[in-house]
Amino acid sequence: MKSRFSVIALLAGVVTSAALAREPVEPLVVPQDTDTQKVELGRQLFFDPRLSRSGFISCNSCHNLSMGGSDNLPSSIGHGWHEGPINSPTVLNSRFSIAQFWDGRAADLKEQAGGPIANPGEMAFTHDLAVDVIASIPGYVERIEAIYGDDAVSIERLTDSIAEFERTLVTPDSPFDRWLQGEADAVNSDVLAGYELFKTTGCLGCHNGPALGGTMFQKVGLLKPYETTNSAQGRLAVTGQESDRMVFKVPTLRNVELTYPYFHDGSVQTLEEAVDLMGQIQLGRQYSEQEIDQLVAFLKSLTGEQPNFPLPQLPPSAPDTPRPSPFGP
Amino acid sequence: MKSRFSVIALLAGVVTSAALAREPVEPLVVPQDTDTQKVELGRQLFFDPRLSRSGFISCNSCHNLSMGGSDNLPSSIGHGWHEGPINSPTVLNSRFSIAQFWDGRAADLKEQAGGPIANPGEMAFTHDLAVDVIASIPGYVERIEAIYGDDAVSIERLTDSIAEFERTLVTPDSPFDRWLQGEADAVNSDVLAGYELFKTTGCLGCHNGPALGGTMFQKVGLLKPYETTNSAQGRLAVTGQESDRMVFKVPTLRNVELTYPYFHDGSVQTLEEAVDLMGQIQLGRQYSEQEIDQLVAFLKSLTGEQPNFPLPQLPPSAPDTPRPSPFGP
Repeated sequence: MKSRFSVIALLAGVVTSAALAREPVEPLVVPQDTDTQKVELGRQLFFDPRLSRSGFISCNSCHNLSMGGSDNLPSSIGHGWHEGPINSPTVLNSRFSIAQFWDGRAADLKEQAGGPIANPGEMAFTHDLAVDVIASIPGYVERIEAIYGDDAVSIERLTDSIAEFERTLVTPDSPFDRWLQGEADAVNSDVLAGYELFKTTGCLGCHNGPALGGTMFQKVGLLKPYETTNSAQGRLAVTGQESDRMVFKVPTLRNVELTYPYFHDGSVQTLEEAVDLMGQIQLGRQYSEQEIDQLVAFLKSLTGEQPNFPLPQLPPSAPDTPRPSPFGP
Repeated sequence: MKSRFSVIALLAGVVTSAALAREPVEPLVVPQDTDTQKVELGRQLFFDPRLSRSGFISCNSCHNLSMGGSDNLPSSIGHGWHEGPINSPTVLNSRFSIAQFWDGRAADLKEQAGGPIANPGEMAFTHDLAVDVIASIPGYVERIEAIYGDDAVSIERLTDSIAEFERTLVTPDSPFDRWLQGEADAVNSDVLAGYELFKTTGCLGCHNGPALGGTMFQKVGLLKPYETTNSAQGRLAVTGQESDRMVFKVPTLRNVELTYPYFHDGSVQTLEEAVDLMGQIQLGRQYSEQEIDQLVAFLKSLTGEQPNFPLPQLPPSAPDTPRPSPFGP
């Protein structure tokens, strides 16, 4: 019995490897390339609202790691209840993106992390004030000294650690990934039919790479205009090129079940609507109801393991820590 | 050697027990009386901003379990950036309070939990709308059915589970508690001098019980008026009795190092100022600088183990889940 089982297992292994080798989508692998101490500091900073002028808004407010790394709002709420201009993209698997923000204006996660802190409509702070706050908190200064060798606090070090934490936010072991790895019953036939449609009707052309997205910029409304009241113009704002109007970074489809509402304006609530619209305006194709259901089943199979760590505990402020100003000037 | 060590350990045990028996403060013990399934549901709900009209504010926004169960602001930020009327009390060890809110207007944690959800200046929702949202989320309905035996969602069940979670938020093993339990070097001589002052100068008269507070209502400004621009009148608003003007629930001193700023108006930033003020207006006593430092050292020794659980993951909304309205009517 034992030897027969081993032969079957061996054959299954061969089949799996062969099947895997043919698939254009690869299972997500968690890179083991992060510095544990930076990750721990970055995780605290990610949850710390003292990086905002109000003392109320943290990175996690709009990239909520309890909700797929997004805020599930059409656009985010910033300082003074400011209505943000664009949908908050998920921070999950963001390390696999060629650039950060919808328009790719930040080269990497470190550059991105500094943006919201100083954006008057988001955290409404300044880098200097954020540094002053963190430098006044002994529990942070100790960590910075342990990591960087001296106790100098700078926005570079803070965003470096936040980015290092964000680089750990990878979500492996989705049902679809488990199927790719040979677990035949990890998904049902609808998922597989949806995956076939995904490969054969053009979705994969843009949504590819480890995160099924994030590898390129593309015009939204390639074949028919994307109708929106949102004023964002995409890459045009970065490059100044007219050809970049409405060209945005292709969003990741991993965990897309959790990152509603959809598109840069957050105007679409359900995956069914999103798939239908993409077919029409990007691919010139009207998916049938059955096809939409199958594509949605496939998309839902891309929900991986969510971040799993203890709720961070933040070091307390000291008597000389500058105090937040939620309602003041 | 071994037997001599055992004799010493035995003697130490006797001394410790004897010492413990004489102390008016008892080490915090985590009660083992909660229902695990309710706690897990309640923990998710505590972190879920979908209980607010905006989809942005959760219980954890103002009772932040990364920051001592408080928001470290003078008063909280509510829907539309509303400036709250009073300092957000910590949820840690709140199960030991005779009543909830600064003025004790809620009899228990369950009654309290319903308050902010429906308060127009806080989460700005209604109980009915909150129930509609939760009842539309399959991941919640499954849990409710498993706990309560049927799938009916009600504000009673939601607040029952939130309260059950909050009842687990007990913070044992502070340095002072470890000293009480016989660990002689858990605290230094300043802490012990501060404890002596705490017992002998009157602090313990109000700050007593397992949470060192929460056992009674007391007038703030017993001997000299408490000067504030805050309009809260304390128990007067609940009882209508003129004698209850400026009578508030005595706050817990556990984790007080983390729950700045202090008093119902959040007007005092440091423990040093708070101790000085309490001496003057409650006890008619001007503590010396050394006494203040010792009392503060004692207070800081009351920081216990903070909540330790994995960041909750929230079940996603369904297509028919009512959507948040952060900027709408």
